[in-house]
Amino acid sequence: MTGPEFEAALRHKIDSKTKPLGALGHIEDLAAAIARVQGSLAPRMRACQLTIFAGDHGLAREGVSAYPQEVTRQMLLNFLGGNAAANVFARSVGAALRVVDAGVAGPPVTHPDLLSRRLGDGTASSLAGPAMSAEACERALALGRELGADGAWDAVAFGEMGIANTSAAALVAHKLGPLPLEPLVGRGTGLDDPGLARKRAVLARAAARTPPRLFPEAALAEYAGFEMAMMAGAMLGAAAAGRIVLVDGFIAGAVALAALGLDPGVRPALVFAHRSAEPGHAEVLEALGARPLLDLGMRLGEGTGALLAWPLLRAAAAMLNEMASFESAGVSGPA
Amino acid sequence: MTGPEFEAALRHKIDSKTKPLGALGHIEDLAAAIARVQGSLAPRMRACQLTIFAGDHGLAREGVSAYPQEVTRQMLLNFLGGNAAANVFARSVGAALRVVDAGVAGPPVTHPDLLSRRLGDGTASSLAGPAMSAEACERALALGRELGADGAWDAVAFGEMGIANTSAAALVAHKLGPLPLEPLVGRGTGLDDPGLARKRAVLARAAARTPPRLFPEAALAEYAGFEMAMMAGAMLGAAAAGRIVLVDGFIAGAVALAALGLDPGVRPALVFAHRSAEPGHAEVLEALGARPLLDLGMRLGEGTGALLAWPLLRAAAAMLNEMASFESAGVSGPA
Repeated sequence: MTGPEFEAALRHKIDSKTKPLGALGHIEDLAAAIARVQGSLAPRMRACQLTIFAGDHGLAREGVSAYPQEVTRQMLLNFLGGNAAANVFARSVGAALRVVDAGVAGPPVTHPDLLSRRLGDGTASSLAGPAMSAEACERALALGRELGADGAWDAVAFGEMGIANTSAAALVAHKLGPLPLEPLVGRGTGLDDPGLARKRAVLARAAARTPPRLFPEAALAEYAGFEMAMMAGAMLGAAAAGRIVLVDGFIAGAVALAALGLDPGVRPALVFAHRSAEPGHAEVLEALGARPLLDLGMRLGEGTGALLAWPLLRAAAAMLNEMASFESAGVSGPA
Repeated sequence: MTGPEFEAALRHKIDSKTKPLGALGHIEDLAAAIARVQGSLAPRMRACQLTIFAGDHGLAREGVSAYPQEVTRQMLLNFLGGNAAANVFARSVGAALRVVDAGVAGPPVTHPDLLSRRLGDGTASSLAGPAMSAEACERALALGRELGADGAWDAVAFGEMGIANTSAAALVAHKLGPLPLEPLVGRGTGLDDPGLARKRAVLARAAARTPPRLFPEAALAEYAGFEMAMMAGAMLGAAAAGRIVLVDGFIAGAVALAALGLDPGVRPALVFAHRSAEPGHAEVLEALGARPLLDLGMRLGEGTGALLAWPLLRAAAAMLNEMASFESAGVSGPA
C-alpha cells in the first residue's frame, strides 16, 4: 500500500473497533505510530529492551551536582547487581536490560554482563574546552548506531547514568535549539539554592566558550557525555532498524534534539514516554513539539520513565491486533 | 507499629532507596498508599482483577445517547467473547477479568463466564421517577460488597457498560457534590450538538424532580444504574478487604463520590487511574480532590483506564520491595 492508502486503511481499522470514535485517545495515536514505523496494520509489540549508557563528565569536578562523581561508577555496579530502579521497573514491566560503559571514570569495571564501549576515562570539563574530540564523538555515534540496531526488539528504551549530565543536557539543548540557557538549568539530583546558583554560573561560562548555535555533532562534542553521544547514535540506529524508540526524560530529550538534528527522519520512531520534573524538560519537549504519554513527577533518569510507557505501547498494539470490530462483534453503531 | 512509627519507617524505606530524594515522584506516593492499605512495608501487588458491571438505563429511551440501548447487551456479549477493549487491555497488562450482569435489558444472557446479579430489566427512566427502588439499591450495594471482597486480589478495578450511563453519572454527581449540572454533562459516546442540547434538557428535567442535594443511597436510587450502585458496593467491599481499588473514569468517579459518601474510610484504598476526556470527569476529580495517574485522552469506560494504571501499581510495589538502598548497594549519598 502507498502512503495515503496505508493511512486510510489504518484509520478505518482503528475506527471500526468496538468503541466510540476516538474514545481511546492517545492510545489510538500510539497504535497508529507503531503501525507506521513497522509499515504494518498488524504490528508486533512483544519485546522491549532498555540500554543504559553510563559515562562520566569532566564538568562534575566544577561542583554542578549534589552527588560526587563516584556515584556514576557505584550506580553502574548497582545496575549490574540488578536492584537499581531501572532493573526493578524493567522486571516489573517485562523489559530486558543491558548496561553499557561508554566512559565511566576510573579503572574499567569488569563484569560479565557489562558491555564495554569505553571512549575514555570520563569526558574533559566543557568549561575549559570541548568535552570530547570530534573523533570520539563520531566513534560514540557509530558505536551507538550498532547498539541501537542489534538484537530483535520491537521497541527500545535508552537510559543514562552520569553525574553532571543534567548540566551537559542543558548545554546541548541550549546550543541546539537554540534555547535560552536559564530555564534549562535545574536542580538535577537535588541541588540546594547556592548549588543551583553555582551550576547556573558554571554553565553560563561553559556556554560562552562557543557560538550561540552549534550543529549537532559540535554540540555533542563540546558539551555532551560519552553516554549521551552514544545514545544519540543508538536512537539513529534503532529508528533505521524500524523500532520504536522510547525517549526517557530531560537528558534523553536533549539527546533526541541532537538525533533529530542529525536525521529528521528519526522522528516517527520516537515515542516520548514521560514529562520529567526537571524543569528544563518542558523546554526541550516544547522545542521537540512532543506531548509525552506520562506525567508522574519523576526525575530519576536511568530510563525509568521510558520503561513505564512500555505497557502502553503493548496495549496500543494489542488494541490494533486483537480488538473486535463493530462488524465482527455484531455491535450496532451510533443510532 | 503504630501510625506515626509506620509512617516514619515507610518514609525512611523510600528515602533510602538509590535515587535522589523524591525522584520517583508519584510512584513513591503510590508505593506509600499501597503500603498503608496493606499495613505492610513489603506489600504484595501481584494479582489484579477487573470486574465489569453491565446494566441498562431507562433514561436511554429519552434520547440521551448517540448509541441505541441494545449496545449494552451487544457489548456484554463482546466482553464474553473476549475481544472488547477491556479484554484486550486486561490480557496486555496481565489482569483477570469477569463480567457481571447487574440488570441488562431484555431476556437474561446465559453464558458460562457471566455472573448473573440481575436487579431488573434495566432501570426505570429517572425522568419520571426513581431509577430503582430503595430496596433494589440496597440489594445492589450488598451484592457489590460481596463481589468486591471475594477472590484473592491485591488490587481490583471496576468497569461499567450501560448505554446512557454518562447521563446517570452526571445526575448522581450533581446531587452528591452537589455540583452544578451543566459542566457535568458531556457528549458521552459522541453526541452531536443537537444531541447534547437534548441531553442537557432531559437531565435538567430529571434533576428538577428531587431536592438539590441527596444522600448517597438516595442519589443512587433516584438516578444511578444497577451497574453503578453495584460498583459502589464493590468499592466498599474491596476497600474493607484491604485491597487497592483502581478507579476508572467519569462514571466510576461519580460512583466513588457515592462510595465515599457512604463510608469516608474507603478513601485510602482508592487510586484514581486516569483523567477521562469526558469533561464532567474534571469536575468529579476536583470534588474528590483526586489527581489521577494517567491522562491519555481516553473516554471509553469498561475499566480501560483503570487497567492501564495496573502496571504502575506493580512497579510502585516492586520499587518498595526490590530496589536497593544506598547502604545495601554501596552508593554514596549527596556530597
